[in-house]
Amino acid sequence: MRVPYETMCAQLESVLRKIGFTPERAAEAARLFVNASRDGVYSHGLNRFPRFVRNVGEGMIAIDAEPELVAALGAVERWDGRRGPGMLNAAAMTRRAIELAREHTVGVVGLRNTNHWMRPGNYGLQAIEAGMIGIFWTNTIPNLPPWGGTEPRLGNNPLVIAIPGPEPVLLDIAMSMYSFGKLEGAARAGRQLDVAGGYTAEGELTCDPDAILASGRSLPIGFWKGSGLSLALDLVAAALSGGLTSREVGVVGQETLLSQVFILFDLAALPEPEIFRERMTASLADLRTSPPAGGSRGARHPGAGMLETRARNMAEGIPVEEAIWTGIAGGDPEVIAGLVN
Amino acid sequence: MRVPYETMCAQLESVLRKIGFTPERAAEAARLFVNASRDGVYSHGLNRFPRFVRNVGEGMIAIDAEPELVAALGAVERWDGRRGPGMLNAAAMTRRAIELAREHTVGVVGLRNTNHWMRPGNYGLQAIEAGMIGIFWTNTIPNLPPWGGTEPRLGNNPLVIAIPGPEPVLLDIAMSMYSFGKLEGAARAGRQLDVAGGYTAEGELTCDPDAILASGRSLPIGFWKGSGLSLALDLVAAALSGGLTSREVGVVGQETLLSQVFILFDLAALPEPEIFRERMTASLADLRTSPPAGGSRGARHPGAGMLETRARNMAEGIPVEEAIWTGIAGGDPEVIAGLVN
Repeated sequence: MRVPYETMCAQLESVLRKIGFTPERAAEAARLFVNASRDGVYSHGLNRFPRFVRNVGEGMIAIDAEPELVAALGAVERWDGRRGPGMLNAAAMTRRAIELAREHTVGVVGLRNTNHWMRPGNYGLQAIEAGMIGIFWTNTIPNLPPWGGTEPRLGNNPLVIAIPGPEPVLLDIAMSMYSFGKLEGAARAGRQLDVAGGYTAEGELTCDPDAILASGRSLPIGFWKGSGLSLALDLVAAALSGGLTSREVGVVGQETLLSQVFILFDLAALPEPEIFRERMTASLADLRTSPPAGGSRGARHPGAGMLETRARNMAEGIPVEEAIWTGIAGGDPEVIAGLVN
Repeated sequence: MRVPYETMCAQLESVLRKIGFTPERAAEAARLFVNASRDGVYSHGLNRFPRFVRNVGEGMIAIDAEPELVAALGAVERWDGRRGPGMLNAAAMTRRAIELAREHTVGVVGLRNTNHWMRPGNYGLQAIEAGMIGIFWTNTIPNLPPWGGTEPRLGNNPLVIAIPGPEPVLLDIAMSMYSFGKLEGAARAGRQLDVAGGYTAEGELTCDPDAILASGRSLPIGFWKGSGLSLALDLVAAALSGGLTSREVGVVGQETLLSQVFILFDLAALPEPEIFRERMTASLADLRTSPPAGGSRGARHPGAGMLETRARNMAEGIPVEEAIWTGIAGGDPEVIAGLVN
């Protein structure tokens, strides 16, 4: 089943207004959810909407709260998200960091006390539209054992790097090989993972999602490397924002009061942007000349597949899980909150 | 065989003066090499010195060249390394970015046309000494196949994140699971890798260093994730510095004319630094409470092991490969250049 982009936006907007969002904020939040699904990030688009509605109902998310400036320090600002909707906070902070970057060539915002920003790539797209390089990350609740340990002490702390160009690059990676959602999806489908995504309870690397869900031992990307990178991203986010570390989010016990970083570089302020554009185009073309590995379509840059998915979903409608769409289309917030699996 | 820190510094300094370095630059470059060995990064300390001497002799490195300001753009500056010694250029750019960060809270330098910076962590330590968070990376010659491809199109582009504190964090990771040097070392020792580090010629993941050296198919950390991260780091370095991409370094055909990024955050300029210090201390302690995985000493933060190695090497002398030390101690630059394996 596929649903047209505008239909989905209108329906999500209507539900958000019903649960108390102002018209402007309902429209913006709806579009951020639908843009995720439009680009193939279904887990953080429509499929995440019921949980968002439920979290609003539970009082985790202060729907009218807007970020508040805590400290203005040259090219860096610290803001407090005041437990507002994570995607609206993140979009506002990206706008603010873009303004700072127009003034200082680089703009940095540290945001604390915010909620889950849903699809990280949305803010990368915002940077790309502004002609800027964007580097963004968030911490999360502890969900990843550190290298050498067996119980979660780290977040999977998604990191985005966005680079504008004729073929934009949009990197959007968490520090675990597979998200909890991907492990669950593979387990439901009875599918093995493409590469080892964690450990069995006995400590053996495995492609079996059930075994990883049972052991709770997800694998950091690059073993000790992703483990260290996750820790470093968490600490830098806490340092710049003055907000909680992943450890402290774990003490809170639910994934809220997160710390995030927004770094923007104004490409247009740098000399000779056209030379860089040519270099980037040449690099992406060169990547595709690497002879394909067995079973692969060959090498491509992050974001290339997204544009194909987007084109198809805009032309044919966005694929939905029927039960979720039917529930949301019904428009009753309580029913929608109950769709959380 | 172990050599005292000061003995090693004095000997490297003397060789560098013999090949034309000014006394000040010889002393600084020598210390950067020896600090790498002191902290256990032997591959980019003493063991790399012969290759550096050879590269100077070949004219790849302009020993007197100092970086030149190309563009001053608020909190961001673009510099040209003029093919100077990579470690002196990188140390100078870290100092410059620290100055920018004191003014703007964040300071960013893009450096082009530089040479190999040897041990990346040295600049992280410089940030830590200045009480600043440092984020640094460099591109390299293509040495890593992108995800989906079988021939190198990416650099392994080392990334450093340094965070000062009572227990500083020093993350220093390349985008390949194992460096060429580590693969060769394991192959010489007849040792298997701890985790899969690449592919056989038949496309199977393997822990056999010989098979990876034969196929040339090193593995990016986190498969598609490290592949995308390597590309993004390369492009951002080229964008900020106005310098060559990894692809273009490959066209040059030797690892020179590199592009690097130095991002510094002045922790002291941010409100309530003592709260962050407590948070960081608590996070690092929490990490150590994750029950150890089988065969592991347990989880630790990046940089913890380095301090132990440093303490031992300062007390007992720095371990050296006897043939390399004997050659360098002889003091003849031609003999030293001939030590390159």
